Amino acid sequence: MTVRAGVVVTGTEVLAGRVTDRNGPWVAQRLLEMGVDVAHITICGDRPDDLTAQLQFLADQRVDLIVTTGGLGPTADDLTVATVAALYRRELYLDDELEQRIHAIVQRWRSRLSSATDSEPLQAGVRKQAMVPHGAHSIAPTGTAPGVAIPASGSESLPVVLILPGPPRELQAMWPEALDSGPVAEVLTRRAQIRQSTIRAYGLSEADLAATLRTAERQITGFGDLEITTCLRLGELEMVTRHAESAATPYKELAGLIDKHHGAQVFSTDGSTIDDIVAARLAGHRIATAESCTGGMIAARLTDRAGSSAYVIGAVVSYANEAKTGLLDVPAEIIDEHGAVSEPVAALMAEGAMDRLGVDIAVSTSGIAGPGGGTELKPVGTVCFGIASKDRPTVTRTLRLPGDRASVRALSTTAAMHMLADALGPAH
Amino acid sequence: MTVRAGVVVTGTEVLAGRVTDRNGPWVAQRLLEMGVDVAHITICGDRPDDLTAQLQFLADQRVDLIVTTGGLGPTADDLTVATVAALYRRELYLDDELEQRIHAIVQRWRSRLSSATDSEPLQAGVRKQAMVPHGAHSIAPTGTAPGVAIPASGSESLPVVLILPGPPRELQAMWPEALDSGPVAEVLTRRAQIRQSTIRAYGLSEADLAATLRTAERQITGFGDLEITTCLRLGELEMVTRHAESAATPYKELAGLIDKHHGAQVFSTDGSTIDDIVAARLAGHRIATAESCTGGMIAARLTDRAGSSAYVIGAVVSYANEAKTGLLDVPAEIIDEHGAVSEPVAALMAEGAMDRLGVDIAVSTSGIAGPGGGTELKPVGTVCFGIASKDRPTVTRTLRLPGDRASVRALSTTAAMHMLADALGPAH
Repeated sequence: MTVRAGVVVTGTEVLAGRVTDRNGPWVAQRLLEMGVDVAHITICGDRPDDLTAQLQFLADQRVDLIVTTGGLGPTADDLTVATVAALYRRELYLDDELEQRIHAIVQRWRSRLSSATDSEPLQAGVRKQAMVPHGAHSIAPTGTAPGVAIPASGSESLPVVLILPGPPRELQAMWPEALDSGPVAEVLTRRAQIRQSTIRAYGLSEADLAATLRTAERQITGFGDLEITTCLRLGELEMVTRHAESAATPYKELAGLIDKHHGAQVFSTDGSTIDDIVAARLAGHRIATAESCTGGMIAARLTDRAGSSAYVIGAVVSYANEAKTGLLDVPAEIIDEHGAVSEPVAALMAEGAMDRLGVDIAVSTSGIAGPGGGTELKPVGTVCFGIASKDRPTVTRTLRLPGDRASVRALSTTAAMHMLADALGPAH
Repeated sequence: MTVRAGVVVTGTEVLAGRVTDRNGPWVAQRLLEMGVDVAHITICGDRPDDLTAQLQFLADQRVDLIVTTGGLGPTADDLTVATVAALYRRELYLDDELEQRIHAIVQRWRSRLSSATDSEPLQAGVRKQAMVPHGAHSIAPTGTAPGVAIPASGSESLPVVLILPGPPRELQAMWPEALDSGPVAEVLTRRAQIRQSTIRAYGLSEADLAATLRTAERQITGFGDLEITTCLRLGELEMVTRHAESAATPYKELAGLIDKHHGAQVFSTDGSTIDDIVAARLAGHRIATAESCTGGMIAARLTDRAGSSAYVIGAVVSYANEAKTGLLDVPAEIIDEHGAVSEPVAALMAEGAMDRLGVDIAVSTSGIAGPGGGTELKPVGTVCFGIASKDRPTVTRTLRLPGDRASVRALSTTAAMHMLADALGPAH
């Protein structure tokens, strides 16, 4: 049986586009992984009428579970609990124990703050956050805001609702307990066992994959039981397939067909990202980057990962030519002869980083991110890459990447990650 | 008079949380700037029933304008135009001229693609994209997908709908023509003149701003006519106020009160970001960064901006201590004595970058981003900063930043931008 869910993201700053919502996507991914179908995500501001309308819409759409995020703070414009309780016709009561618990958390924080805040609004805020609808399950706060799970209301045709706070870290920390809370756990027992598999390829066009999928549709019995979505992002084509246990065979056949036609482009079939793969392959290595047009983005991406200090030694961002010469020992004559955006310069940058930083592998970029600086021979989007390594000759490559400055830089960074993965080869 | 809008973002990959939507926030910001009230944003997958339900919901909520993004591609799962047309009871017809135009664009692209694609599905795709609902206004494509604007339907109580493609660059390029298209332009004439002003502060707590707003509420006549939202992000507190022309005086008084109480923390009252301010103040300077825990993020952020090559010379990411010594001349004994995360090391890193890269200002970071590496004296989140400049003694500072690894790195990067802005002083 399918369990359908809707997600309501609250917050005027999200609705106004000033803050990128991280909760809707995170909750949707968790639900899908568990085999829950996400039907709608809605975003609303801090207006009770709009929130009520969205909740009613989702109820009318016959979802089995609504998850709301945000609007649980101590101030007057945080009104999710009161609004949901009104729709579900449940009175709020003050949970004394919860009030004490929140009060203790706030006191601990307050003692670390330099700025004194009024004590009266503070206590009113704590009291507000400790108000719980009758018959609801409270979920322990990791910040100051407790979550709330309310059972379905048969008479009003309202589904189970799970109310969680807006700060992503709080929400994510509370998620396991939220799933275990009575009303939510009950809904989840009704879900079907759904598997979700992801195949990722680099350098494969959507059109070529579509052609293979058309072949699959003709050849594979039970192809229709696979729910396939594809998505192209920074040159990586991702194909996510959801299916019931019973459709395991058609999925296996599909995966085989894709491997047969596009095996050279497929880099992941187990959910791992290119960052996971590069990190695994860098074990036991020492790496440095030498970056021009990417301006430090490859180094920032490599060091994004906890534990990266085991293999990242450092980087040189040689944005100006003098930095290429001064810090990476690229002879000025070579730059004059070939131009800074050239394979000879990219090769020398990577080799210079390898020597200067004493690493066994280094990657370099030199390109024209735009909007200015393009020429007829080297238009905006031209990027040269180099990979130097202790064991092998330096390799270079030139790509012409589409889009604006941000696009060229992001595509270059991802291209460098794939070249690194190829150069490092499979982990042993 | 208020014009209310709703935004529908389509795409299974967005609903599933695999792709971050950029269109909803972008469209919402543009509408709000024009004085249009954004009531709801909804996200739906590639299922016609769900899309119809969301459109009907927005119509029931009495919005005057619906903007949809995505679902205009050539393949069968791109079904926005057909679904909207069905709801509005408008037949589709093939616009011959549009078909030829799209065909020419596709041919141009195809000639640059290495992979051959089937010709038959391609032509079917072009034909599909050239189908226009009767009575609708077509908006010229910048990719292959034209936009569509459909007038309100009085008999069905349906609002004006503007259908735009999903790729952000295409959508944004088509936006001006979309606003000028008959049905949209007509709705927009009905909007009130709304002003939107933004005040940004760094190092100001939400509680302190809330206290000032309570004072403002008591003191300022017409305070209730101001629609204020505040948002804390990476240590920056942003206050956006929307008001009618008639409430210009209360806003001026509010801005004065905030300047009086928090003038030292306010860094922008004209919409400019810290990146804008740093870029403006760097004119005529030469800058380098020396980064440890931020791993290149400051350099990447500085070079994110077109034209940054005029002042960014380069950066050294000295992740390992040997890189601090080898590339930035920080004596190993100083690192041994004080630890890599210390103000003396941060000072020497900045000075080393200034000397090695021949710049007149350099900023450095050395910190413990976590999750490992923390000690009792230097817990995770401890970050030391240094600013070296030609004219002044080197300054250093230590912050203890909250949150996980990503949070510490992001907060450090923003902190460095603010220190740079302060060190550079107002532009002359």
